[in-house]
Amino acid sequence: MTTRAPNRNTLWGRAVADELAAAGVGAVCVTPGSRSTPLTVALAEHPDIRVFSHLDERASAFFALGRARRTGEVTPLVCTSGTAAANFHPAVMEAAQSRVPMLLLTADRPPELRDSGANQTVDQEKLYGDAVRWYKDLPEPEADDRKLRSLRTDLARAVSTAEGTPAGPVHLNVPFRKPLEPVEVEGDVPDDLPELAAGGRDGDRPFVSTTAGHPMPDDRDLQRLARALAVERGLIVAGPADPPGPDPQAVTALAHATGFPVLADPLSGLRFGSSVRVAPVLGGYDGFLAAGVSEGWPDPEVVLRFGASPTSKPLRKYLAGTDARQLLVDPAGGWREAEFAATDLVVADPSRLCGALSRQVEQVASGSDSTAWRERWEAAEAAHWDAVDAAAGDGGFFEGRVLADVAELAPEPSTVFVSNSMPVRDADRFAAPAAKGLTMLGNRGASGIDGIVSTALGAGSATTDDLTLVTGDLAYYHDMNGLLALERCDVDATVVLINNDGGGIFHMLPIEEFDPPFTGQFKTPHGLDFEPTGELYDLSFARVDGDDREGFRELYRESVASAGTDVIEVTSDAEASHLVREELADEVAERVAEID
Amino acid sequence: MTTRAPNRNTLWGRAVADELAAAGVGAVCVTPGSRSTPLTVALAEHPDIRVFSHLDERASAFFALGRARRTGEVTPLVCTSGTAAANFHPAVMEAAQSRVPMLLLTADRPPELRDSGANQTVDQEKLYGDAVRWYKDLPEPEADDRKLRSLRTDLARAVSTAEGTPAGPVHLNVPFRKPLEPVEVEGDVPDDLPELAAGGRDGDRPFVSTTAGHPMPDDRDLQRLARALAVERGLIVAGPADPPGPDPQAVTALAHATGFPVLADPLSGLRFGSSVRVAPVLGGYDGFLAAGVSEGWPDPEVVLRFGASPTSKPLRKYLAGTDARQLLVDPAGGWREAEFAATDLVVADPSRLCGALSRQVEQVASGSDSTAWRERWEAAEAAHWDAVDAAAGDGGFFEGRVLADVAELAPEPSTVFVSNSMPVRDADRFAAPAAKGLTMLGNRGASGIDGIVSTALGAGSATTDDLTLVTGDLAYYHDMNGLLALERCDVDATVVLINNDGGGIFHMLPIEEFDPPFTGQFKTPHGLDFEPTGELYDLSFARVDGDDREGFRELYRESVASAGTDVIEVTSDAEASHLVREELADEVAERVAEID
Repeated sequence: MTTRAPNRNTLWGRAVADELAAAGVGAVCVTPGSRSTPLTVALAEHPDIRVFSHLDERASAFFALGRARRTGEVTPLVCTSGTAAANFHPAVMEAAQSRVPMLLLTADRPPELRDSGANQTVDQEKLYGDAVRWYKDLPEPEADDRKLRSLRTDLARAVSTAEGTPAGPVHLNVPFRKPLEPVEVEGDVPDDLPELAAGGRDGDRPFVSTTAGHPMPDDRDLQRLARALAVERGLIVAGPADPPGPDPQAVTALAHATGFPVLADPLSGLRFGSSVRVAPVLGGYDGFLAAGVSEGWPDPEVVLRFGASPTSKPLRKYLAGTDARQLLVDPAGGWREAEFAATDLVVADPSRLCGALSRQVEQVASGSDSTAWRERWEAAEAAHWDAVDAAAGDGGFFEGRVLADVAELAPEPSTVFVSNSMPVRDADRFAAPAAKGLTMLGNRGASGIDGIVSTALGAGSATTDDLTLVTGDLAYYHDMNGLLALERCDVDATVVLINNDGGGIFHMLPIEEFDPPFTGQFKTPHGLDFEPTGELYDLSFARVDGDDREGFRELYRESVASAGTDVIEVTSDAEASHLVREELADEVAERVAEID
Repeated sequence: MTTRAPNRNTLWGRAVADELAAAGVGAVCVTPGSRSTPLTVALAEHPDIRVFSHLDERASAFFALGRARRTGEVTPLVCTSGTAAANFHPAVMEAAQSRVPMLLLTADRPPELRDSGANQTVDQEKLYGDAVRWYKDLPEPEADDRKLRSLRTDLARAVSTAEGTPAGPVHLNVPFRKPLEPVEVEGDVPDDLPELAAGGRDGDRPFVSTTAGHPMPDDRDLQRLARALAVERGLIVAGPADPPGPDPQAVTALAHATGFPVLADPLSGLRFGSSVRVAPVLGGYDGFLAAGVSEGWPDPEVVLRFGASPTSKPLRKYLAGTDARQLLVDPAGGWREAEFAATDLVVADPSRLCGALSRQVEQVASGSDSTAWRERWEAAEAAHWDAVDAAAGDGGFFEGRVLADVAELAPEPSTVFVSNSMPVRDADRFAAPAAKGLTMLGNRGASGIDGIVSTALGAGSATTDDLTLVTGDLAYYHDMNGLLALERCDVDATVVLINNDGGGIFHMLPIEEFDPPFTGQFKTPHGLDFEPTGELYDLSFARVDGDDREGFRELYRESVASAGTDVIEVTSDAEASHLVREELADEVAERVAEID
């Protein structure tokens, strides 16, 4: 039961805050503005909601995305009317693609001011197009029984839709007319307003609640699927996971039951953790599946795929080149496989399906023995990591090795966020599977280099884990504003900034051969000295040379052992690093060629 | 005639670049990315096109907006696929609202990869919704006669639509499949491709051209309008102009012919320039029309309004409170008047209409004499500026005075860009009309505080004027990334940074009374010391105290007299400034009350 509201807008804002809290929301991200005042005031006053205040809406949205990516739970966003809402768009796109819960509450001017030439009044209707799971333009606030019931229902619906299957962004556009502040407006809120509409349900219970079922094949289909897995040569491929990700125990139990190795994307939630002890969880495929290396191998007969399309291009190309039956498992019925080599879609909850299939597979008397097949993959995996370790032993440090070292040295439990462009690819190739408490995250939906700092800090704000961000210089520059959250949102991080002065990834593309325009338009060296960001955002800034491996490891160890935020800049030459990568690829190829 | 292209994508990119150049485009803004390679390469190679390379797409789009706002001509934008395109959205919104030409060329993956789970492949179709004047998903590149003719037509159409009436954003989504680089692809471009399709028209002429008519009432309607103006008490109100703005001579000639004063918004293009000598151009109305001040005055009989809704709230409220006939002149038929007090819409080109009406008005024998009415307004105007000057003479320096000093001291010719929130309002109230070469610009469409630095630098890049940006601290922080353009795009500026540590504008709103949440959620002090931005972006940084008027004037004079970019930070207390504003308002009220 809320106290009597001084006007309809205050009442409306409080109903929003109450229903969010009742739906389990514990935090929101707010950017300052006038039109959103009723929401901001109610959220700031609510005892169970923490307000993260940001100044750049783009950073705010990525911060909220990071929290939801880490937890699977939505952190609603509030902004004022106008371009503020458009600044959310990049993060909305990422949330839509990578199925991260997001709830956008965009304040708006009252309907009569739309398309009228009024200041800061833009067309916010369906602003994010098809990228949202649900859009609704809320009615004008009024202390009316039916309207308040609809509002409470909409808020509960919005949270459950955002967190549903597939999770993703939900946009509620919220018009308000003045007064926006909690000033007394005589007669605006009738005394006889029904308590349920005005104050919600007793005991902080939500006004309405959703019970979401999980798709599962029926028994006959399960048996059929189990029989399809009763072969010698099979693979389980786990791509980047939708948060909160599949249950690692369930997936590795199925791997154990089938005898198939698990190829675990660094963002699959499966590459790190104790379940890697249950079954062979492989992470070297980006090296040993490179073109030509595994050419003589027999094809797999079946591939069971979870999550989004794998980060590894060699893996995607390998899978596209086999004639295996490929089953995509997707709880939302998405056909997320862009080589068009998949043959079957199984609409099912991955964890539950793995559990059920593990039991079924054990009952299928197949007589098939996957030992030789599995051992071949394990040998290739070993060859890959041996080559990587040997290269490191030679003192050969380079960009890619940074990810190996971070994965090795990050304390437990850690959240490690890897930027797009090179860091996520390097994590894929150089961060070895390990039985340690490490959650690796990235924005692998739209794969932009925007919002990286904010997403990482958002993820860090949602956990007591140690937080490490590994980013390139372009992504660091792109979201420098996000560093403001370190102090405003009380997050600590170790930021590993791999600075090769521009777009190193373009060295991997054929455009490198065409210069100009290569250097000016693709590599785009900026010459920025990032050290002043230390003073600007009150963080320590250290620099280490790209071939000083021990120096980097020492700085990293010190940083994670101390409080506060440190940026460790690894200066690097993208071209030289590219050469090390190529040498290492040759070395892996040689070693793999020696396998029977 | 182009040289033979090595593949269809190169051919396609060159056709785009050629047609843009033929349509008069001399510059583009490009951000690095792989998918946009065919466009980037062709634009970089084109001898008549300058490429401004940016790293943050949000900043890039605002920079392009600034150029177009200053010149009225489009600077196309190129980005890669994915969230890059979403980062354009805030500037697209501003361009749509304030009728600034913009052309978005967003590279996309080929159609079969859409909704397939492929990396960096998002739904870019109709990405900006109704905010664009025209959207087209271009066909897949092919060295085909009809397709190339369609491409060339579309590019010419895109430019003329973006620069049409109303001007605004146009979005072309441009899919490409690999190879994206100018590598030879056997048979991809037939030798017998018709020259017209492959190479365009001879002599760099556009493939198609548009001749746009300008709406004008017919003679009978003109006479009717002229009769409506044949009264004693009339006003001409010029709101923020659509670029390139109305012809000042035409508007002041009409003012002269009717005897009506011109109330000129700081963004109207009329407040500064030699035409202020032709007729009374007033700029003090934001002071002397404040509630109560002009209460006893007779109402105007007719108000002729140009441009968007005025920045001044006192002016808007004054107009809404009169029972005058109010004629909106808009070339695109927009009803841009959010008080709903206008009575007539005249769909006409403002400059041409003013010219025609001046002649008509002189022919109408009205017998009305507007002298007394005009003198009353001129007296109020004088009272306002006397009060402002007197306050400055007392040594009373405060935020608002900064704008008065900048307008006074800016060398000729200057472009002065004013941020939203307080600077544009302060320009409105404190920058006196003057017969000097000063172009004052602002983003008054959606009125966001985002993209301000970039828009200003873009405007500066399009002219040889001296460039001054006056911004608050939140806007400076929001678009700090935009400062990278100083070096990359070779722009010099004087940046006057009024730093009151947070959202000073909220002190003007009733929410100030409610603390908490006022300080934490509205004022939002950030405590940022911006001095390191000097080192980060290689600019000089000076600081002056908010009550040291002479100190500020000295620094400003020095800055505009020297090359390179200087930030002059004026540290200010928003609350104290607010009190000075209130005292000054009282002083103006007193002086105006003394007018007969």
